[in-house]
Amino acid sequence: MTVAARRTIPAERYRDRLAGVVAAAAAARLDALLISVGSDLRYLTGYEAMPLERLTLLVILPGEAPRIVVPRLERAAAEAGIRTSLEIVTWEETDDPHALATSGIPAHGRVAVSDTMLAMHLLAIQQALGADVRYSLASAVLRDLRMIKDADEIALLREAAHAADRVIAAIAAGRLVGRTEADVAAEVRARLIDEGHETAQFAIVASGPNSASPHHEASERVIGAGEPIVLDIGGTLAGYGSDVTRTLWVTGGDATNGPDEQFRHLFAVLHTAQAAATTAVRPGMSCESIDTTARAIIDAEGYGEAFFHRTGHGIGLEGHEEPYLVAGNSLPLRTGMAFSVEPGIYLQGTYGARIEDIVVCGDDGPIVLNEAPRELVVVDG
Amino acid sequence: MTVAARRTIPAERYRDRLAGVVAAAAAARLDALLISVGSDLRYLTGYEAMPLERLTLLVILPGEAPRIVVPRLERAAAEAGIRTSLEIVTWEETDDPHALATSGIPAHGRVAVSDTMLAMHLLAIQQALGADVRYSLASAVLRDLRMIKDADEIALLREAAHAADRVIAAIAAGRLVGRTEADVAAEVRARLIDEGHETAQFAIVASGPNSASPHHEASERVIGAGEPIVLDIGGTLAGYGSDVTRTLWVTGGDATNGPDEQFRHLFAVLHTAQAAATTAVRPGMSCESIDTTARAIIDAEGYGEAFFHRTGHGIGLEGHEEPYLVAGNSLPLRTGMAFSVEPGIYLQGTYGARIEDIVVCGDDGPIVLNEAPRELVVVDG
Repeated sequence: MTVAARRTIPAERYRDRLAGVVAAAAAARLDALLISVGSDLRYLTGYEAMPLERLTLLVILPGEAPRIVVPRLERAAAEAGIRTSLEIVTWEETDDPHALATSGIPAHGRVAVSDTMLAMHLLAIQQALGADVRYSLASAVLRDLRMIKDADEIALLREAAHAADRVIAAIAAGRLVGRTEADVAAEVRARLIDEGHETAQFAIVASGPNSASPHHEASERVIGAGEPIVLDIGGTLAGYGSDVTRTLWVTGGDATNGPDEQFRHLFAVLHTAQAAATTAVRPGMSCESIDTTARAIIDAEGYGEAFFHRTGHGIGLEGHEEPYLVAGNSLPLRTGMAFSVEPGIYLQGTYGARIEDIVVCGDDGPIVLNEAPRELVVVDG
Repeated sequence: MTVAARRTIPAERYRDRLAGVVAAAAAARLDALLISVGSDLRYLTGYEAMPLERLTLLVILPGEAPRIVVPRLERAAAEAGIRTSLEIVTWEETDDPHALATSGIPAHGRVAVSDTMLAMHLLAIQQALGADVRYSLASAVLRDLRMIKDADEIALLREAAHAADRVIAAIAAGRLVGRTEADVAAEVRARLIDEGHETAQFAIVASGPNSASPHHEASERVIGAGEPIVLDIGGTLAGYGSDVTRTLWVTGGDATNGPDEQFRHLFAVLHTAQAAATTAVRPGMSCESIDTTARAIIDAEGYGEAFFHRTGHGIGLEGHEEPYLVAGNSLPLRTGMAFSVEPGIYLQGTYGARIEDIVVCGDDGPIVLNEAPRELVVVDG
């Protein structure tokens, strides 16, 4: 088992991030910014609290030092996990933590909450604060900070990408024909963990006609010779996401079982579109323009209807986060943004293909983190 | 690698569950029950959608057949994943899915939402429905169904428990002294996956003084000879949670490094308390009485202040769910409820211990799913 050296973000970075979000909350004239367990909390404090039903909440009020409310049994974990200076307030198992956490917020206030706060907490906070408070999502003040990855974050994304690339290579080199998708997916998950991921969040193994379903769940279907397999795999390594897609074709060792003409054409179009979209990445280009670049090429070859999802999503401490490369998003790319570029072409009932890399917007153009070959990989399987 | 046979809940069970929740929503006079991605959706339909930012929502309105709103790119996955009869409504990448999902809900309605619905969706739904709708948590109507596990669910919980037990045994038999907690935690995660878990959600490895922190995050601390290690590990197998805690003591091969008198006493009290709480489980006993049983024994030995969390939590498709074994919860236990029994004693700055099993309330008493020995395991390490 390979255990990656444990990399960390320097402690002073959390101080700077917290100061940045306090300033952003003040600029947005928020009366409270409430950050629940999840990637926002980890981003701002380093604390990886478990997403459980007991309330843990970072409370940022104007003119006050930020404080974090945690269950008493989590105090030691919070002290160990929080990597910046922060007052810790604890509650006992039979206390009302939502009342405790929201004290001091005005009855007509404007309150922003983490996008991933659970309804059980949001409804309890709404109950505690009364009907006159207006709510918004914390991403409005956090996105400008979180979208721009610094060098340490990019290094972690690269490490995660390379680990996932190695899993793709191992799966492509192994036996596939005669195994179920679910069995291959289990191997993917085990290999991601062996490669240092702490979680293996998804392992799409979509064979034959299933490859036409973008988010196919690995099933009991037995992989046959003479068909494509879309592998879309990922998880987190030191908190940062991996997410890579490659399309294989398995022949079962019989060269007459190679890809047919239609698939070769479809794949060539896809490969061109994915490369063009990647090449288009540079500061100032809009998110939607990257989507348009891929889509125009696929449309021109008559596959427009067969590419029915956006071209990509941001990635960092969340597997999907801003920016989204989708029609209607005029946000300009900036140096340090990290996202997937992943067009796909899906012929329902027949087969499909997708190619996905994680790309960082560099000063002069794209920095592609994945290194696994993007060409159609034809293997015996 | 051991890949467990893929077990499933029979399809007709989903039909019955969905019918049960439709009836419960009607009895509660709800104008809408909105079930987002997560364990509620999986429980009712079998569909394991990924918890992403795109809206997937099961919509149950009075007098109408339930329908599920999904992103178009998820249609095939939804068709494959949903194991009962259900209308699927799709939305395109640039549509407003929250408006689509909430059409037909009255402006003064009573709406229940999944406890784990994300704020990004709940706030958008609140925006779409206006200020006069009243919200509540779906658990109010789902808990009576979900708390009672049927024989298939108990079989899956048992399979998960035994897999986790084997990981505990393997870790206890291996080298520990001289390794970091984080390194051992990585091995725990890899072994859980190898044992057929699809996720390894937590791997608490709390050594020496860290064992006094109930939710310690495995750190770079190097495990030494002559100290305890609390292992609290788990994840999901076929969707159902494992969660087991055992306390080891590592001597480094030197018998003079065995547990001291205080630790032996502390552990003996804990062992007695955990066994007594387990033995007290039977239909009709209140949840809080199980907590009281453990607490009374620990209190009587002077460790009351050192046991500062509830005795247990329900488990099923969520790692923590109802019922909670906590002071103030007068809910009577019923046959088929499944929960942890996990008292702990923590001496801050010194050390601590915890023992945890998953227990099912049987007709005549407790059915303990975990089989790993509960005694203090003294090993060379």
